[in-house]
Amino acid sequence: MSKTTSNSIHITKATQSKIDTVNFDDLQFGRVFTDHMFVCDFEDGQWQRPEIKPYGPMTIDPSARVFHYGQAVFEGMKAYKDNDGRVFLFRPDENFQRINKSSARMAIPEFPESYFFEGLETLLKLDSAWIKPGIGNSLYLRPFVIATEPAISASPAVTYRFMIICSPAKSYYSDAVKVIFAQKYSRSADGGVGFAKAAGNYGAQFYPTTLAQKRGYQQIIWTDANTHEYLEEAGTMNIFFRVGDKLITAPNNDRILDGVTRKSIIQLASDMGIACEVRRVSVQEIKDAAKNGELKEIFGAGTAAVVSPISAFEHDGQEYKMAMEDDSYAKIFKSRLLGIQHNEQDDTHGWRHEVV
Amino acid sequence: MSKTTSNSIHITKATQSKIDTVNFDDLQFGRVFTDHMFVCDFEDGQWQRPEIKPYGPMTIDPSARVFHYGQAVFEGMKAYKDNDGRVFLFRPDENFQRINKSSARMAIPEFPESYFFEGLETLLKLDSAWIKPGIGNSLYLRPFVIATEPAISASPAVTYRFMIICSPAKSYYSDAVKVIFAQKYSRSADGGVGFAKAAGNYGAQFYPTTLAQKRGYQQIIWTDANTHEYLEEAGTMNIFFRVGDKLITAPNNDRILDGVTRKSIIQLASDMGIACEVRRVSVQEIKDAAKNGELKEIFGAGTAAVVSPISAFEHDGQEYKMAMEDDSYAKIFKSRLLGIQHNEQDDTHGWRHEVV
Repeated sequence: MSKTTSNSIHITKATQSKIDTVNFDDLQFGRVFTDHMFVCDFEDGQWQRPEIKPYGPMTIDPSARVFHYGQAVFEGMKAYKDNDGRVFLFRPDENFQRINKSSARMAIPEFPESYFFEGLETLLKLDSAWIKPGIGNSLYLRPFVIATEPAISASPAVTYRFMIICSPAKSYYSDAVKVIFAQKYSRSADGGVGFAKAAGNYGAQFYPTTLAQKRGYQQIIWTDANTHEYLEEAGTMNIFFRVGDKLITAPNNDRILDGVTRKSIIQLASDMGIACEVRRVSVQEIKDAAKNGELKEIFGAGTAAVVSPISAFEHDGQEYKMAMEDDSYAKIFKSRLLGIQHNEQDDTHGWRHEVV
Repeated sequence: MSKTTSNSIHITKATQSKIDTVNFDDLQFGRVFTDHMFVCDFEDGQWQRPEIKPYGPMTIDPSARVFHYGQAVFEGMKAYKDNDGRVFLFRPDENFQRINKSSARMAIPEFPESYFFEGLETLLKLDSAWIKPGIGNSLYLRPFVIATEPAISASPAVTYRFMIICSPAKSYYSDAVKVIFAQKYSRSADGGVGFAKAAGNYGAQFYPTTLAQKRGYQQIIWTDANTHEYLEEAGTMNIFFRVGDKLITAPNNDRILDGVTRKSIIQLASDMGIACEVRRVSVQEIKDAAKNGELKEIFGAGTAAVVSPISAFEHDGQEYKMAMEDDSYAKIFKSRLLGIQHNEQDDTHGWRHEVV
């Protein structure tokens, strides 16, 4: 391994790339990682000098607080390459702000902006060959922070590790998914951590989602825990409903993640003159709209899946099927988002961030 | 290190004990660990052969699912030694059943009973010197399970690690604590994972607890997330209220942990002829009882703290102080529980489990 120093980051390059061992036509989401990873430890009350080094296992004490108390947050972002080989991130400032908002709620120290961006950019330059051009290809980036202090008292840790790992991705969920509207289980409470990308929010959904999958539904649309009468989000995606020509999506609150794809779609809808109401959405109104033919589409929006059309929902034991139109809003937004992300369409809002 | 095999567990003994480096008179909770740890991996659809080996750091992939999705559960138990050197656990069957209940909710495979008990007993025999006799001394045992599969898709892992680590303990919280009744933040939702010892339940409390501590209150008594009108639990302890000569504690539900100390106190109260009502407890009735002098005590109950008297609570900006009586129920229950645990009092319910 050769050691070099780029600005403040200490870099140890991999002696040999693994890229030739990877079949980019047959990628499962999040299973293959690039040659390098970014690591920065919080010790003695401050973030220490960041490092980039070969991707690989790390050593950690069994008493590290992340294992016992779930003091951990993450982000999901993607890098895209255009046909000229230029590399872009999409609204990375949003992810930076959100990981620190998540960290604050989980009593984790905030991460410096310069380290975040310098880390991402240096890593992307080193592993640029892993980003394949073409719509549908991307490099999924996973910044995350874990509490590493080796002591099992139930209080905030004094040491942490911030990391970025990268995994090449093809588009996630190519087929339409069927969902269940939650009636028994819940994702988050008022006054809880649902708005944060806190690790524990995700593991808590696995069991109810497994139950749904056994019944033929891939995901759950979570409802408010108090009444199960209002539709909130899908756990890894925010949710949009098209009733007539109008879009409706739930407002952000302390239970719902402030999704970057969600807020981009709200802006794009405004650009295109599509009415979009951000307000509480009741299960009853969506069932009524399905019955009277006004419900045209439901789709999920998130970094991993971009826009994911939903072909049916179940509630109270009844399944409601959606017509999947060729001119759907889901297709329009997906095409527009991918066009901007891959530098094939005008970026009127300055969302692309070129990595140079 | 010498290698031996005890029944099904593969044992690698530490070459030298660290015990002489430890000051048992000055122990901070959960910072010092014994010479050995128990490790059992779930792979290929089953729990593999368990191991006991020297306590130390382990190697894990940065993409291990526990770091990203908080798929992790734990237990807290204690081992006690009497003056004849006999070692006891307290109701370990309750912890065994609960860790599997927690695991089921977090989509983690259940752990075999024989591995759990054989693991605990073998570990305790090896590290028996770390259990000091005398009321107040114990060895805190931390069984836990983490998702180890190196893949960041948001679904249940296919590989896990079950571990037991052990930390010598003096009594936790010797002083009475002051608490705040939660009015903004929440611990768990109906239909969520509050009843499970899921890692993420604990990290989510750190930030609100830090805010409370800045105002001079050590802990929060969580209320129901919907209305904040009913008192539930303290996050690391269940809560009892003494109004007149009567005890009141909240019923178990999907938000509240089914505490072993809690259920033992309910039984002991029955044994002693103390009325104990298990029902919803409203903030208003406790404030009213405090105002009219009927509120005699509030105390927490949990494995780490045993019984922890509360000297004051705050609600709506007002502090209510409790008289701390010498003949408090808190002292009576603590003394009775410690007496049973340390084999100094009759174990009428068969709660002691001797390690032989």
